[in-house]
Amino acid sequence: MTPLDLLSPSISSQSVHEKLAALRSLLPTNHVDAYLIPSADEHLNEYLPEAKRRRDWVSGFTGSAGDFLLGQNQAWLFVDSRYHEQAELEVNLSLIQVSKLGLDEQKTLEETLEQLGKEAAKTQAPCRLGFDPFTIALTQFRNLQKQLEPWGVVLVPLPENWVDRVRSQQPWVETEPLPAFATSKLFYLSDAVTGETIQQKLKRVREDMQKSNTEILPVTKLDQIAWLYNLRGWDVPYNPVFIAYTIITQDNAFLFTNLERVSSELRQLLAEQVTLLPYEQYAETLKSLISRSPCRVLLDPQRTTMGTYRILTAEEVKDTCRIVETQNPIEGIKARKNAVELDQMRLANLKASRAKTRTLKWLTDQLAQGKILTEADVAATVERFYAEEEGFQGLSFNTISGAGSNSSIVHYGTPDPERELKSGEFLLLDSGAQYASGTTDDTRTVIIGTPTPEQVERYTEVLKAHINCAMQRFPKGTTGAQLDGIARSTLWFAGLDYGHGTGHGVGAFLNVHEGPNGISKRVSEPLEPGMVTSIEPGFYEPGWGGIRIENLYVVKDLTEPNPDEAEPPKTRWYGFESLTYIPFDLRLIDLTRLNGQQRSWLEAYHQAVVEKLSPELNQEELAWLRLAMP
Amino acid sequence: MTPLDLLSPSISSQSVHEKLAALRSLLPTNHVDAYLIPSADEHLNEYLPEAKRRRDWVSGFTGSAGDFLLGQNQAWLFVDSRYHEQAELEVNLSLIQVSKLGLDEQKTLEETLEQLGKEAAKTQAPCRLGFDPFTIALTQFRNLQKQLEPWGVVLVPLPENWVDRVRSQQPWVETEPLPAFATSKLFYLSDAVTGETIQQKLKRVREDMQKSNTEILPVTKLDQIAWLYNLRGWDVPYNPVFIAYTIITQDNAFLFTNLERVSSELRQLLAEQVTLLPYEQYAETLKSLISRSPCRVLLDPQRTTMGTYRILTAEEVKDTCRIVETQNPIEGIKARKNAVELDQMRLANLKASRAKTRTLKWLTDQLAQGKILTEADVAATVERFYAEEEGFQGLSFNTISGAGSNSSIVHYGTPDPERELKSGEFLLLDSGAQYASGTTDDTRTVIIGTPTPEQVERYTEVLKAHINCAMQRFPKGTTGAQLDGIARSTLWFAGLDYGHGTGHGVGAFLNVHEGPNGISKRVSEPLEPGMVTSIEPGFYEPGWGGIRIENLYVVKDLTEPNPDEAEPPKTRWYGFESLTYIPFDLRLIDLTRLNGQQRSWLEAYHQAVVEKLSPELNQEELAWLRLAMP
Repeated sequence: MTPLDLLSPSISSQSVHEKLAALRSLLPTNHVDAYLIPSADEHLNEYLPEAKRRRDWVSGFTGSAGDFLLGQNQAWLFVDSRYHEQAELEVNLSLIQVSKLGLDEQKTLEETLEQLGKEAAKTQAPCRLGFDPFTIALTQFRNLQKQLEPWGVVLVPLPENWVDRVRSQQPWVETEPLPAFATSKLFYLSDAVTGETIQQKLKRVREDMQKSNTEILPVTKLDQIAWLYNLRGWDVPYNPVFIAYTIITQDNAFLFTNLERVSSELRQLLAEQVTLLPYEQYAETLKSLISRSPCRVLLDPQRTTMGTYRILTAEEVKDTCRIVETQNPIEGIKARKNAVELDQMRLANLKASRAKTRTLKWLTDQLAQGKILTEADVAATVERFYAEEEGFQGLSFNTISGAGSNSSIVHYGTPDPERELKSGEFLLLDSGAQYASGTTDDTRTVIIGTPTPEQVERYTEVLKAHINCAMQRFPKGTTGAQLDGIARSTLWFAGLDYGHGTGHGVGAFLNVHEGPNGISKRVSEPLEPGMVTSIEPGFYEPGWGGIRIENLYVVKDLTEPNPDEAEPPKTRWYGFESLTYIPFDLRLIDLTRLNGQQRSWLEAYHQAVVEKLSPELNQEELAWLRLAMP
Repeated sequence: MTPLDLLSPSISSQSVHEKLAALRSLLPTNHVDAYLIPSADEHLNEYLPEAKRRRDWVSGFTGSAGDFLLGQNQAWLFVDSRYHEQAELEVNLSLIQVSKLGLDEQKTLEETLEQLGKEAAKTQAPCRLGFDPFTIALTQFRNLQKQLEPWGVVLVPLPENWVDRVRSQQPWVETEPLPAFATSKLFYLSDAVTGETIQQKLKRVREDMQKSNTEILPVTKLDQIAWLYNLRGWDVPYNPVFIAYTIITQDNAFLFTNLERVSSELRQLLAEQVTLLPYEQYAETLKSLISRSPCRVLLDPQRTTMGTYRILTAEEVKDTCRIVETQNPIEGIKARKNAVELDQMRLANLKASRAKTRTLKWLTDQLAQGKILTEADVAATVERFYAEEEGFQGLSFNTISGAGSNSSIVHYGTPDPERELKSGEFLLLDSGAQYASGTTDDTRTVIIGTPTPEQVERYTEVLKAHINCAMQRFPKGTTGAQLDGIARSTLWFAGLDYGHGTGHGVGAFLNVHEGPNGISKRVSEPLEPGMVTSIEPGFYEPGWGGIRIENLYVVKDLTEPNPDEAEPPKTRWYGFESLTYIPFDLRLIDLTRLNGQQRSWLEAYHQAVVEKLSPELNQEELAWLRLAMP
């Protein structure tokens, strides 16, 4: 799946008008012509805590992605195809212009700013764009600057977030005060589920820092921090993380978070490895560390905000602080799960597989009994089955349950209690759960009633794309972009394609989207043993419907040991092991379109589904399963 | 194919010793600890003119790639696996340490400099590395700086090339004086072969410059300059280019080259569009253009040297010159050939296909007569057949003719007059020619005598990889990395792979390697209609032998016109059209390993070979061809 709506209470247009006016009043005093409010927050989160959903608060738009630009006389919201409809419904179009990215004649943020720059140039003045440097990654900032600089647009980082400032004023400080954040209880994961102590993790990270000759590593991303300290929290929806910064040095590790919610037991547990400090002390501690004596700081430009970069490049530290830009070593270490984490992931995904299989059986039974079901009924059912499994912590994203034409909306995040499942239509069910200590994500598309030949043909082609990628053997060094082509090859011959990537990394009881691996034409990162990835090809045609077939897989080393141990094998060969075991809808498969290799994979997979699920299924469920996969 | 050896006369070790000593004497006076002599020259050429092969002159090593580093007490040559053997043969190992990249324990240039940095740090001093900024691309410089900065290595650009300086001194100024360069005659290509006038090309380039709001474009790469002005020359081996710079502005175009070799006729022809200036005036003209009034300069950091960048960032122009870094628009326009260029490419490749087919027939005949043949005999024969075709201008690279275990050397560039073709062995023949006005490149691997089942199996798997890529339909936006995965998929299932990319761009009567397109895991550039690419999967096992099967293809738009013209088709579909028509060795193909789709492609291809070649073949040749492809 990919990110979804997080609905807030709707906002009156009068209120939006006043908010925009309050923000606009800050333009002249700050000598800027426009102000940018990006989707992201200080930790570059995909799911934001309520307090940091600043764009939502100003505009009323609640989608997971979409930047907001405030000009002197105009305001713009830039949304991709997932949110074209939703943005128009949520936003007051007389106050805010919605730019539907991907459609003709619709300007991007960059093009809109380019236009502002051209207009300003007529008056011989640059166009000055204000923004909060803590809400934008360094790489994003640089790309923006590179694109806008030729057009005379000057990017002006401003010290205080304007939305926070306005919200702290009358009347909002009383009516819509800034919510508290970082208040969830932290909980510690034992070595039995993480497979590695904090001490061991710190040691590995410090070794990698030494390889790039760096002594200080500031960390922005919450999943990296949660992984490193074997800690979890629920400060944001769906991701079991907590709002914090950390700075790792060769002889210390500072964790900055709301300390009120840290139990004394936990403090004791962390005391030997970690210095706990209040969240607010991040910037000053970093400043103090880099100004004492000459030091080298490891900075990940993709995963660190411009705000931290500005601290490291301040005039006061120019004699002491040297920056080394490279990928944060935690990113790669975290992605390559250890044996214990993989066992936890297998367990969690088996639970989720059982829950979805039970949902499919329930669906068959209900329809057989002539019951009328809605999209929301299906979503509620799979979530109920998830919750029945031991260790359930919550969903890993909000459930996508789309019927008929709704199945073609890739990120359909609002299962409708009014939308009934109709015979001859697809139901696309994309959902996942968080279990202590694993994260799940899978999608099945099923037919209600009897499919048309076209539905069978297209479903079978998507299934072939899934199988082709899932069964591929590949040598060490193979990238996500190469595997993406392999997944699409037969689909392309059938004249079909899908607009999203083929797969994303998944954390171990962490974020359902994690880096650095992925399967898409943009990913040059090689897949390494222990990495977990989704494989989820699809096909979507607005009006007609959509198909997606998604399992999670772990990359395994398949290299056979060399009989002559003295000589190591020349090439290491990798492949995928499935974590997901849910039947495919056989009514939608035309076996004659599959080649022998694909058929063997499918047979072995369905056999494995029975083997993996049967121990916990009752007789009736098992009977259904065997019937579903003869 | 990929670049090859350009053999120079061998150099005595006494001479090398003296050259190194002369260069070392410059270290203290320039306050540097080491000096870098990269493989490339001022135009980032793959094939260098004799005068610019500075590394060759100093070290004696003549390979096409390999950087040289001179330290106070040591000197290093860094060569990849293509040159491990050759470097050891050509270089005096008591004076120069050869670092065989890719082998364990062998240090890269960066690692060696890192080590020098660490040693210097013990004395609290930085390690200062001198280099000629005109011999390194800006991107390369930045990568080097990024990697070395953490280790205290300071990169020091120095104004004069040390090798040129030393060579202008006694005794070399008399014994090995700097050869003249840029002396070949320039020749003009008519619109009938280029399909576009200089005026039209300049107009398109200027439009693209306006899109990035730039007014000045300095150009470093010779193939871009040759393409832009419809001019060719033979200043370097294999590439029909001439040493020059150009600067394009919105109202002028300056061409800097050795004017002595420009005929008055040509001067007249260019006069309306181009201002001709001596080669030496490039830097001062650029300086003058950027210092007059505020201006924006388009700079391609991958294809422009650090030398030009330093002109643009000099203190004197900091108030007037703004740099916009982006890909040089010529690169993309040049790669998408027009209809006239494609016709020329079809014609040239048909000539080369005929020449290679005749070589294969000749080979069959000679062996049938019991003749003993060597690698060099085969190379000479294909070159003779190339030369017999009308419009032959020369080879597009030096012929690779490798027998038996030599066929596994990917860049085997020295066909041996002593190495006989033996029964049971492969012969790999990778060659190409330049015709007015097209460039060719193809590879066939054939068996001498009868193949073993293993040879058949592996050849068939490489052929499948070729066919899978060549017959793929793909949507607009598909990248070289995705197609690379598609080529390798079945090969990987067979446990085979190859260490080079699957394809490279090819120019129209230009360089046999050109950007920006390519098919490899590193290429994120989408393939666009009109681009020409090789497809050349292979398999190599040292000792056992090697297989490579290479054709050139042009990307075609296959999208069917929409019956309802009002509605444009949603997805544009592309595919490949072959430019190369040479039979494959049927003795090496196990048809049972091919699926129906692959067999159909192969049949259609062989049928096309007969159709395309038969008009110009005589009865005997045609009879052989029909026999070779029943």
